[in-house]
Amino acid sequence: MKENLQKGSASIAFSHPVYFRSAASVVGEKEGEGPLKDYFDVISDDPMFGTNTWEAAESTMQQQAASLAVTKAGLKTSDIRMVFAGDLLAQTVASSFGIAELGIPFYGLYGACSTMGESLSLGSMAVAAGYGKNILCATSSHFATAEKEFRFPLGYGNQRPLSATWTVTGSAACIISSSPPRRKTTPKSEPLLQDKSCAAITGLTTGRVVDFGFRDSLNMGGCMAPAACDTIYQHFNDFNRTPSDYDAIITGDLGNVGKQILLDLLAKKNVDITLQHQDCGLLIYDNETQDTHSGGSGCGCAASVLASYLLPRIVSGGWKKILFVPTGAMLSKVSFNEGEPVPGIAHALVIEQIVLSE
Amino acid sequence: MKENLQKGSASIAFSHPVYFRSAASVVGEKEGEGPLKDYFDVISDDPMFGTNTWEAAESTMQQQAASLAVTKAGLKTSDIRMVFAGDLLAQTVASSFGIAELGIPFYGLYGACSTMGESLSLGSMAVAAGYGKNILCATSSHFATAEKEFRFPLGYGNQRPLSATWTVTGSAACIISSSPPRRKTTPKSEPLLQDKSCAAITGLTTGRVVDFGFRDSLNMGGCMAPAACDTIYQHFNDFNRTPSDYDAIITGDLGNVGKQILLDLLAKKNVDITLQHQDCGLLIYDNETQDTHSGGSGCGCAASVLASYLLPRIVSGGWKKILFVPTGAMLSKVSFNEGEPVPGIAHALVIEQIVLSE
Repeated sequence: MKENLQKGSASIAFSHPVYFRSAASVVGEKEGEGPLKDYFDVISDDPMFGTNTWEAAESTMQQQAASLAVTKAGLKTSDIRMVFAGDLLAQTVASSFGIAELGIPFYGLYGACSTMGESLSLGSMAVAAGYGKNILCATSSHFATAEKEFRFPLGYGNQRPLSATWTVTGSAACIISSSPPRRKTTPKSEPLLQDKSCAAITGLTTGRVVDFGFRDSLNMGGCMAPAACDTIYQHFNDFNRTPSDYDAIITGDLGNVGKQILLDLLAKKNVDITLQHQDCGLLIYDNETQDTHSGGSGCGCAASVLASYLLPRIVSGGWKKILFVPTGAMLSKVSFNEGEPVPGIAHALVIEQIVLSE
Repeated sequence: MKENLQKGSASIAFSHPVYFRSAASVVGEKEGEGPLKDYFDVISDDPMFGTNTWEAAESTMQQQAASLAVTKAGLKTSDIRMVFAGDLLAQTVASSFGIAELGIPFYGLYGACSTMGESLSLGSMAVAAGYGKNILCATSSHFATAEKEFRFPLGYGNQRPLSATWTVTGSAACIISSSPPRRKTTPKSEPLLQDKSCAAITGLTTGRVVDFGFRDSLNMGGCMAPAACDTIYQHFNDFNRTPSDYDAIITGDLGNVGKQILLDLLAKKNVDITLQHQDCGLLIYDNETQDTHSGGSGCGCAASVLASYLLPRIVSGGWKKILFVPTGAMLSKVSFNEGEPVPGIAHALVIEQIVLSE
């Protein structure tokens, strides 16, 4: 691996690709009725996932996604060298219980809804440095745990402004590796290995915490857009690239409101990503029929869209190279109730199609 | 760098040391009256640190420690390639606001009271891999934010059982680097550079989440001891070492109760660390006069003891090699109130005296 060494860089370019060996997604019923319904691995019609509490439900969903990713890679949990995982809940309780039972060396993360970006960043850094052959990166969110943690009791039935996003009930897990997925161990039906091509991380840009002073817990897109702008702009500078170097630039969960703010902020810096930009929060639901207002959000939004839709499309050559930019709003009900703003963060990953020579 | 490649290893041995360029500690009044009072950089007699809320107090304390560490290393914030930081609060709010204003590429962590172990692990992995020359690792805890987050309102004045620990009001930050501290930029009075020797991380063992089914939020030592046992035992196996290879084996915040459980659990595995074991929670307070029951705890406990007392003692040769094992209890008031147990985690770092040849 090598680092972009120019002063002030926030990026790393890997000299060897870090391969996706597998990706798995587990989502709830609402997500399973949206535009990506044909792509998810598991759609659960039980929002409790067979448990008694919302938190246990999210943990169970995360563990299902992690176990499925391990199986799809043709591996056992003992083959996984370490895990990077986190979620939205206080003390990341979904991950502490969800991943815990797998017994793999564990690094817990908190990056709000950018967590899949953070876990894939740290995971790919570890793989590229030779610290482990196979590393598991996972995250989750659940509509009910998030409403309980950050907003109102579900039974209260509060009205949602049009700037509000809908927290995705979903979890995704990826196994990233120094080796590409193998025909021998990967089922023929697995979309992550097609026609001898696969997907890999080839670079990343680490986000900074950006605080624009937004104080609206029902406009997460607005809180995160300045951070997405900062990371994307930094990325183009660090790699000396322009938007046209990418087939798609895909943010995590800005939604309609945040998307427009991001495009406006980048336009002020003379960067136009209108042609390339998509947002996982706008891909996962059909707002016309699903009443999700600004779009989807939550750690599970960017993660489950990546695992189910983005990675297979890269592998099949629908996109040759994308910039994947999960976005997070560092919302805490304590700091929020004390009148503090909601800072944002976004981590960017370069994900490319790799054609295997073997 | 190289990895211990035997199957099932949870450890990494660095072929080049990762140096501590600086370490800074900022603590509260109670900590400043304890046995380590002469070692801390800053003792604040204002528990609010000039702010209006406990959370802002902790953020301010963390930012003070981080800024001081940067200054002590003779660096500017723009010289710091990335930050690894976290804390105990929901959505790690002390770090989101504390470190945010420094504007450094940021990875947020949640490892409960093991956070200094997690941040130094990931930071040293990044330095050793060449991803950055200087990396900031920081954490904090505050007695008042922790009681508010996990237990009872301070004004309630609840009784504390003898198994309870006292959350340290303290923050510490370290700059770790591929280069040793420099005489030119380091003040003469700085204890991290003495007689041409310094301290460095030469290896680590990543912790697993260990859940022994403990359900007592006022006995964190009991919840963490099984995780400390697991990591220490794994470490000896991975590195093929015994307790006598270390001058000291120093856990984070097991306290009196957890210490005894750890020694008992290791004895069952025929490992005796009685001679080498110390615990930061027992070093930071004088229980005879400070009424802290089982000892100190919190992310800031292991961190501030490392920065103020352990590292200078290694640099001066008082210890040649220690195993530093911050311990964390994944306590969440939501999962706790739902009857879930409190899993633990512990990350181990090998820290050695390095004699500089120049």
